[in-house]
Amino acid sequence: MIMEQSIAWVVGVGASRGLGAAIARCFAREGFRVAVTGRSPRSLAIVVEEIIAAGGQAIALPGDARDESALTAILERLESIGPVEVGIYNAGNAIWGPALETSSADFEEIWRVGCFGGFVFGREVARRMLRRGRGTILFTGATAALRGKATFTAFSAAKAGLRMVSQSFARAFGPQGIHVAHAVIDGSIEGDKIFSVIPDIAQRKGPDGLLEPDAIAEGYWYLHMQPRSVWSQEIDFRPYAENF
Amino acid sequence: MIMEQSIAWVVGVGASRGLGAAIARCFAREGFRVAVTGRSPRSLAIVVEEIIAAGGQAIALPGDARDESALTAILERLESIGPVEVGIYNAGNAIWGPALETSSADFEEIWRVGCFGGFVFGREVARRMLRRGRGTILFTGATAALRGKATFTAFSAAKAGLRMVSQSFARAFGPQGIHVAHAVIDGSIEGDKIFSVIPDIAQRKGPDGLLEPDAIAEGYWYLHMQPRSVWSQEIDFRPYAENF
Amino acid sequence: MIMEQSIAWVVGVGASRGLGAAIARCFAREGFRVAVTGRSPRSLAIVVEEIIAAGGQAIALPGDARDESALTAILERLESIGPVEVGIYNAGNAIWGPALETSSADFEEIWRVGCFGGFVFGREVARRMLRRGRGTILFTGATAALRGKATFTAFSAAKAGLRMVSQSFARAFGPQGIHVAHAVIDGSIEGDKIFSVIPDIAQRKGPDGLLEPDAIAEGYWYLHMQPRSVWSQEIDFRPYAENF
Amino acid sequence: MIMEQSIAWVVGVGASRGLGAAIARCFAREGFRVAVTGRSPRSLAIVVEEIIAAGGQAIALPGDARDESALTAILERLESIGPVEVGIYNAGNAIWGPALETSSADFEEIWRVGCFGGFVFGREVARRMLRRGRGTILFTGATAALRGKATFTAFSAAKAGLRMVSQSFARAFGPQGIHVAHAVIDGSIEGDKIFSVIPDIAQRKGPDGLLEPDAIAEGYWYLHMQPRSVWSQEIDFRPYAENF
Repeated sequence: MIMEQSIAWVVGVGASRGLGAAIARCFAREGFRVAVTGRSPRSLAIVVEEIIAAGGQAIALPGDARDESALTAILERLESIGPVEVGIYNAGNAIWGPALETSSADFEEIWRVGCFGGFVFGREVARRMLRRGRGTILFTGATAALRGKATFTAFSAAKAGLRMVSQSFARAFGPQGIHVAHAVIDGSIEGDKIFSVIPDIAQRKGPDGLLEPDAIAEGYWYLHMQPRSVWSQEIDFRPYAENF
Repeated sequence: MIMEQSIAWVVGVGASRGLGAAIARCFAREGFRVAVTGRSPRSLAIVVEEIIAAGGQAIALPGDARDESALTAILERLESIGPVEVGIYNAGNAIWGPALETSSADFEEIWRVGCFGGFVFGREVARRMLRRGRGTILFTGATAALRGKATFTAFSAAKAGLRMVSQSFARAFGPQGIHVAHAVIDGSIEGDKIFSVIPDIAQRKGPDGLLEPDAIAEGYWYLHMQPRSVWSQEIDFRPYAENF
Repeated sequence: MIMEQSIAWVVGVGASRGLGAAIARCFAREGFRVAVTGRSPRSLAIVVEEIIAAGGQAIALPGDARDESALTAILERLESIGPVEVGIYNAGNAIWGPALETSSADFEEIWRVGCFGGFVFGREVARRMLRRGRGTILFTGATAALRGKATFTAFSAAKAGLRMVSQSFARAFGPQGIHVAHAVIDGSIEGDKIFSVIPDIAQRKGPDGLLEPDAIAEGYWYLHMQPRSVWSQEIDFRPYAENF
Repeated sequence: MIMEQSIAWVVGVGASRGLGAAIARCFAREGFRVAVTGRSPRSLAIVVEEIIAAGGQAIALPGDARDESALTAILERLESIGPVEVGIYNAGNAIWGPALETSSADFEEIWRVGCFGGFVFGREVARRMLRRGRGTILFTGATAALRGKATFTAFSAAKAGLRMVSQSFARAFGPQGIHVAHAVIDGSIEGDKIFSVIPDIAQRKGPDGLLEPDAIAEGYWYLHMQPRSVWSQEIDFRPYAENF
């Protein structure tokens, strides 16, 4: 399934303890040359080092998911190295708070990284994949895409938009050989992001109460490996004890 | 149910043959002082004239739904005249075409008028209504919010975002006395907008094959008149012969 | 809109304080000859008396919604009096309790009244309406149709089935002139049914915390009155303070 | 993950070319002792022979999924051999045809095998699993559960009910360590069932246009292997070129 020199590109890679990094490690372990993109060169460097130390291949290409020209430039550079066989859009920030206090700037910002960047990413990656008639594009979504809670206005709106981007692309590109799928993350991912906001969340949630990033990454790998006769378009991931 | 001098503000009013104008006429007929906002002063003037000719009260306040400061300025002016009891966000443009050919500028533009403007509108209108503990906010949505079709990427993403804004606001503001609801328009509205693109659509669709704007407007009025013990959060409107 | 002698038939009429009775009263008030069906002749007699006392026309036709031959016999009798222009299926019982303790008999029973009866009712009513190319069929549904909660296994399964019956019929019969719609009731209806189980629920829920049956009935009337260019297929009803 | 002597029980096993058989083969290959249940002893015997010939362990326990006492008796016999660690409900028949021509008997029959049997199966299997605090229960569902098409009234109603059973059980039993998930099959499964109805469907659909049963079975295996911090509750399977 892996072409010579083929690349898995993960956008939205932050801390080593996070979903983006876990996805990168997983695809590297399975033999992909992995490219990681995120805003912090330092974080990317750590992820790349870990992958290389484990015997994998990885490169860091810092960039901002909201910046179309940055994304396009990175993609062109990658394609000069090898075909981007897998594109994973994992960027996105949740904010929460009273609906009335959500600023327009925050609403736009959350959309730009959570939806607009995913659209640009998917469209540009698909453009290259369509020439080859193959490829996998995965989007990290959230339950907020399905239900607009009172305190998640901006996040829900952005993630609902991203989900429609994924569905639209799946319908447009699937029959041409590109597998597009959307993961509905329901709960908090065990990682530096949530720990920086709610330090004791792991204790509060109890054993396996947070989504284990490496386990989600295995799910992304499973989606990539599906034969085209059984392509999934959507899957949810949720800790066993999560209320839903 | 109508307070002295209370105002129904409709944003997204274009041609006289269109949904925004029909909503304005309906609420004026039912006794509201109506304020209409849209980009074309000329179109607004026609709608206002029609309402006044029919014995109603209406004022035109031209402005762009994408422009936060314009919306806020209009709202402040309205509130100096009387309480905005009803706010209806009807702005939005559909574009369609191959997913790969949707430009980033179009994607953003469709979102700005279809989702961002609705968020700003709803938040600012709610802010005033919450002080009075009453009011109705209605959003014009579309089936595209629920299904991302291959050729409607941008429109689906924007309308799905708007739908989540509406749901989030309904959950946030409903218990405080503000009725927030979302109308899922499924099909083409009989009006100048669709005729300018597909002149013979009425013939193609057959009798009652297009959504009659005055009939949708009656539905908006019905939603506004619901007692708070039975508030609807979502309703769809669809021609009887529409395939869905 | 009302044909000479045309009949509105409501199945699932129990106590005078209940949704079925409220729907019957509403359609009688609007000029329909109303036929009410339910298991308790005594309850039906009270509802009929009330309607007649208010100047309306009503007849009681006792019967069990789960019994196909009873439903069919009643329908034939009604059609010999006049055309059944409106058919409303309001039968259904909720049970709740731990999923493991739901008996097979209860699961089947809840389905038989909540789903099977609705299918038979809708099919047989539609069969007559289709000959005339007009009619309205409404189903009383519930939020449980959309989300399977841990303690509502049987009710969710039955109501989800009924919802699909309604959707399927809407797609099948809509283009032939029959308006089929589904009401998602979210919350408890103010009436004898809930008071017999939770006597103090009105106090607990606070003012307007229960769905007012007459107000829901107005919604059913609104659906019936929609012109065919804007037929709704689904609408929800929910007290303003209900958590959803 | 596999306990000594632990059993995977698949209900709804027919022809060797079918999903039930493929699931049985897959779980046997992965080391489970597999028990297969279906109405045709002859078909079960073939599936068992194939598994044993491939070095796996399998037993045939003929029975009708609609028959509660049969299901319970089989389960008790299985539990005397070893713990049922995995229970998969794959029974179900689709019928299609004009809504008006769906007989009540067919509507009930489709429900009994497609929904009622699944409820009984899941409840009884869960009852045993809960004592051990572990286990996986998977339901084979269909897109019809989500959309009621005009010609699939009975199938949609049954599958929507089954989906709610799965959701309800997931919410009830998940926090107690039982993984419950629902697979949305969208399209036709390559197998004897569809070939007996539409012999040339494979040609019509083109390469990989039918769902490959062994590939779906791999998806079921993936669901079973998920760590509890990332349990999926729903996944869809669809041929890449399927219109959806």
